[in-house]
Amino acid sequence: MMTQQRPGEHMAAEIAQQPEVLAGLVQRQAEIAEVAEKISQRPPRFALLAARGSSDHAALYAKYLIEVLLGLPAGLVSPSTATLYGARPDLRDVLFVTVSQSGGSPDLIEVTETARRQGALTVSVTNTPDSPLRAASELGVDIGAGVEQAVAATKTYSATLMALYLLIDAVRGGKAADAEKIGELAQQTLDGATEGVQRAVDRYRFVNRVLTAARGYSYATALEASLKLAETSYLAARAYSGADLLHGPVAAVDDQTAVLAVTSAGHGAEAMRDVIDAVGKRGADVVAVGSASADTPAALRIDVPQTVEELAPILEILPIQRIALGLSLARGGDPDSPRGLLKVTKTR
Amino acid sequence: MMTQQRPGEHMAAEIAQQPEVLAGLVQRQAEIAEVAEKISQRPPRFALLAARGSSDHAALYAKYLIEVLLGLPAGLVSPSTATLYGARPDLRDVLFVTVSQSGGSPDLIEVTETARRQGALTVSVTNTPDSPLRAASELGVDIGAGVEQAVAATKTYSATLMALYLLIDAVRGGKAADAEKIGELAQQTLDGATEGVQRAVDRYRFVNRVLTAARGYSYATALEASLKLAETSYLAARAYSGADLLHGPVAAVDDQTAVLAVTSAGHGAEAMRDVIDAVGKRGADVVAVGSASADTPAALRIDVPQTVEELAPILEILPIQRIALGLSLARGGDPDSPRGLLKVTKTR
Repeated sequence: MMTQQRPGEHMAAEIAQQPEVLAGLVQRQAEIAEVAEKISQRPPRFALLAARGSSDHAALYAKYLIEVLLGLPAGLVSPSTATLYGARPDLRDVLFVTVSQSGGSPDLIEVTETARRQGALTVSVTNTPDSPLRAASELGVDIGAGVEQAVAATKTYSATLMALYLLIDAVRGGKAADAEKIGELAQQTLDGATEGVQRAVDRYRFVNRVLTAARGYSYATALEASLKLAETSYLAARAYSGADLLHGPVAAVDDQTAVLAVTSAGHGAEAMRDVIDAVGKRGADVVAVGSASADTPAALRIDVPQTVEELAPILEILPIQRIALGLSLARGGDPDSPRGLLKVTKTR
Repeated sequence: MMTQQRPGEHMAAEIAQQPEVLAGLVQRQAEIAEVAEKISQRPPRFALLAARGSSDHAALYAKYLIEVLLGLPAGLVSPSTATLYGARPDLRDVLFVTVSQSGGSPDLIEVTETARRQGALTVSVTNTPDSPLRAASELGVDIGAGVEQAVAATKTYSATLMALYLLIDAVRGGKAADAEKIGELAQQTLDGATEGVQRAVDRYRFVNRVLTAARGYSYATALEASLKLAETSYLAARAYSGADLLHGPVAAVDDQTAVLAVTSAGHGAEAMRDVIDAVGKRGADVVAVGSASADTPAALRIDVPQTVEELAPILEILPIQRIALGLSLARGGDPDSPRGLLKVTKTR
């Protein structure tokens, strides 16, 4: 017998599970370090990452980590070059990371199989250790987030970031020292954001035009925020790297524009100051999220505990997930039953 | 003495110059082949591309060409990993292509200098052979589009695509055979689209929500279309790869959504059929642009002459530029004086 669910019940529950999931992953550091050890035995010259949807934002986060922490050039794969156009690049010395919570997307399985045949060392990062994607790849990291029943990814997103961080940190010989307290910090983030989230939901009840913006590691957060708002609240939110926003699209910003600016302490925050000033001068309504939000002239600031800058995206997304959930409910929707959204997409 | 300009005069003139600019570039094939020859003497294992704004869309186009035509893995650079976080990856055997019409963006000059020091073979693709970016890079391709006075890039965008195609085609030993008639085809595209462009401008006069979508090579066109509409007509247009759109954001598509679908004959068009069907079923208003548009159930179709699929983006963007121009004027704007847009952006 099916029990009637309250709207958003699954999404709310999975958002709340994140502190525990993240802490659990950090405890499994040694297991992830074994995968890292196998990567270190075949040291790559170049990294490629393949993903779609939320996982693509996690892959972008990993691209920054790989470039900065490992000093390796990295790129995001356009699956269609292999699946539509039959590209067969030489991938010896390439670390090929496929990120997919379901591990079931046919195009990602196909590009992973192709990459392996072309000589890459393939690693999948999934929430499904028994998935066909895991079987297609030589190595695998299980993000261990438990079954995800909500359609909008929340705990699998933050757990994927965490797993990618732990993997890349281990490749450089780290033991996750900076991530030790991430579970507690995630709990603090959720507990501390309640009032800010409610005010943001009120503020966005009738909004039509939302831009999200960030720089550096937090750009992944801006992309994921825009997707979450589109999926759950049907907002045509658009994400920008702060630098690209100033390069042209700032022309479209006016006093009818809401800007969700993600800014965490560090180099990214310094660069975001110009962006927040520029959109503020054009009359935009700015909501700032992150550990550097207190320093901004935003109309509403949602603080997040400070961490090393490369871990900030794991915390920043938490209040934003709750804004997406709250806004969906406030607008009369049910984020657990969005119009036309499937968990595994069978694109080619 | 300054002469008073009519609104959009520069943009209109530069759109009209494109057939001549493109034909002129093809005639300079031998000169571009000399650069390709120098690349072939140091055959790269990987390619990286750095750019911002419209040039970033041209870089994405080049990424697809490099992966499919040259069989080399390629990635887009996130300049901030070098400029904000000091990443210093090992770039021996890497072809590093920086794309910038102005050749003056400080962050792109910095990442190019860094890449060169790290061992990459650096090539700039600019409209300014005397620019600091050209000086910073070992090799250079001049797109030869002439002075661009309009703020919104049009002729420099199509000329950059053309120059990148000619360069990559020459690296594989080609002599631009497929591009021979591109100037004439561009003229046919502009001449043939007049009525369709006017109807699209009428249709979008009061639109609030526009998505652009495409697959494969044409994804660059969808991105550039969305930027052009944002810059000139202040629309919060968002671009999707058709595959990513189906993966989630399709939930935000309804009968108040305009979808500008780019579809040209070939593998991309096959994959776009599912996308156009899916958004059509949700009630979206679909305008299709491209050589495969006639086969779609769109409300309005803007045909473009057929070419080999990898050249289609050079033609597809032309009617879209005219839609952006016309819409800006219809909404009382002046695309030559957009709010807050600068030609060279000094981001870090």
